[in-house]
Amino acid sequence: MVLLDGLKLADELKIEIAAEVEKLKAAGGKTPHLAAILVGHDGGSLTYVGHKVKACDQVGFKSTLCHFEDNITEEFLLNEVKKLNEDPDVDGFIVQLPLPKHINADKVLLSIDPNKDVDGFHPVNVGRLTLGLPTYVCATPLGITKLIERYKIETAGKHCVVIGRSNIVGRPVSILMSSAAPYGNATVTVCHSKTANLKEITLQADIIIAALGKPEFLTGDMVKEGAVVIDVGTTRVPDATKKSGFSLKGDVKFDEVAPKCSAITPVPGGVGPMTVISLLLNTLKAAKNEVNA
Amino acid sequence: MVLLDGLKLADELKIEIAAEVEKLKAAGGKTPHLAAILVGHDGGSLTYVGHKVKACDQVGFKSTLCHFEDNITEEFLLNEVKKLNEDPDVDGFIVQLPLPKHINADKVLLSIDPNKDVDGFHPVNVGRLTLGLPTYVCATPLGITKLIERYKIETAGKHCVVIGRSNIVGRPVSILMSSAAPYGNATVTVCHSKTANLKEITLQADIIIAALGKPEFLTGDMVKEGAVVIDVGTTRVPDATKKSGFSLKGDVKFDEVAPKCSAITPVPGGVGPMTVISLLLNTLKAAKNEVNA
Repeated sequence: MVLLDGLKLADELKIEIAAEVEKLKAAGGKTPHLAAILVGHDGGSLTYVGHKVKACDQVGFKSTLCHFEDNITEEFLLNEVKKLNEDPDVDGFIVQLPLPKHINADKVLLSIDPNKDVDGFHPVNVGRLTLGLPTYVCATPLGITKLIERYKIETAGKHCVVIGRSNIVGRPVSILMSSAAPYGNATVTVCHSKTANLKEITLQADIIIAALGKPEFLTGDMVKEGAVVIDVGTTRVPDATKKSGFSLKGDVKFDEVAPKCSAITPVPGGVGPMTVISLLLNTLKAAKNEVNA
Repeated sequence: MVLLDGLKLADELKIEIAAEVEKLKAAGGKTPHLAAILVGHDGGSLTYVGHKVKACDQVGFKSTLCHFEDNITEEFLLNEVKKLNEDPDVDGFIVQLPLPKHINADKVLLSIDPNKDVDGFHPVNVGRLTLGLPTYVCATPLGITKLIERYKIETAGKHCVVIGRSNIVGRPVSILMSSAAPYGNATVTVCHSKTANLKEITLQADIIIAALGKPEFLTGDMVKEGAVVIDVGTTRVPDATKKSGFSLKGDVKFDEVAPKCSAITPVPGGVGPMTVISLLLNTLKAAKNEVNA
């Protein structure tokens, strides 16, 4: 059984990205520049944005954090987005979610220039993904395809079962896995809360991508021998033995499932560390003008 | 076995659309207006555009046909698109494909205002479909969902197998069928040319949507008793007994498959007639400003 080590792969990719940045600069190009808008003081958001800024430092990107109090108006925020849209030095930027309730998050996300939308949430970029055009693929699906590619998981003609149809994981990853791409060409089944006979379907899967957000949902009896299992779940579960008071649980009952697998991602340390790398990869793409949305 | 009669449903929907137009006008609204750009004299294109213009007449829409010679420049065509984008009386328009080889069709389609893109081909609208936002759904997938809704085919929790992953049929219909919508909530498997064990999968299907474009590909031994079969194929096959010299063949071997089905679309007269209706439905949506792309 191969452990799909997202931490290790993330470190490798950071070294590769840093080398690309050096090459760009040596050729007279500009330093890739990622900006992040953060509103308020949500603990999770502060942590995530912190990780992203740190990762930029590690690979030699320039980063800008625009941190505002949670009493700013929607109009103010839309104007800040406009400034970043128009700033020629900023290659890409993200608006960290969640936003305060008095701000319409959809309206804000739609106002981001699709060419700078390195989170890949804008409908134009989702449409380009669906159509197989060059685009910014959103973080978790892109991270999954990188794990699959680097660990040389065979996908063509394989049966991949995706559990979950969310706009940020299940839906896009199901499109990518069935597309004519090096990480794709799988026969893909999308399962969700309305699926009648889930176990019958997962037992047929060569590859399972669990992205439903229910801790330890996928049990050993649902997986066939030799399957590849990608666990996207990261639910915080109270844990008195941890300093933080919680531990991260995946959607997969690891102890039961892992022994049956040919390969599996751990939680934490599997898909999670790949999402920040996806943001770096998208920002590099933006700096190189590889997407023309 | 129920024959899913696209011709009959198309006639019913035309009557409903005509009534809506009357209601709109009685309330002081404008007459829905569809424009079509046609370049050159391709026989198929002339026929299709003719059908569309005639359907507009039948439901009380205004229609405009912009017919140009095939030696126009790309620049000229882009300017004609711009004129229609800016014409406040035109609610929606289409550019009939194929275009002459010296014109970049992608560039032309991308230049259409997404709010007037009643063919639903623009990435913004494909993205909105993928994300479950109000949009113009492209013609064949929309026609299929209308057939399913009107014939009260149960889809929630059912296993729907889509054969084909094209941008205009297989991919969008697979997204729609698995989305949280009245015609959706199915467990959907996308199969394609790289699928290894197709028959094993189709034999599990409650609903099969065949959209691969290979005449009589789906045979009786590939379908389980009681399945619903939607045949999207319309390949022209030489036929000396027809005045036209050809007959239309679906992707389904009808004589073998139909007796096993609880419901099936014929070819011709199934999905085909629904596509023009989809265009009318999208134009009506445009006239009512129901999409804000």
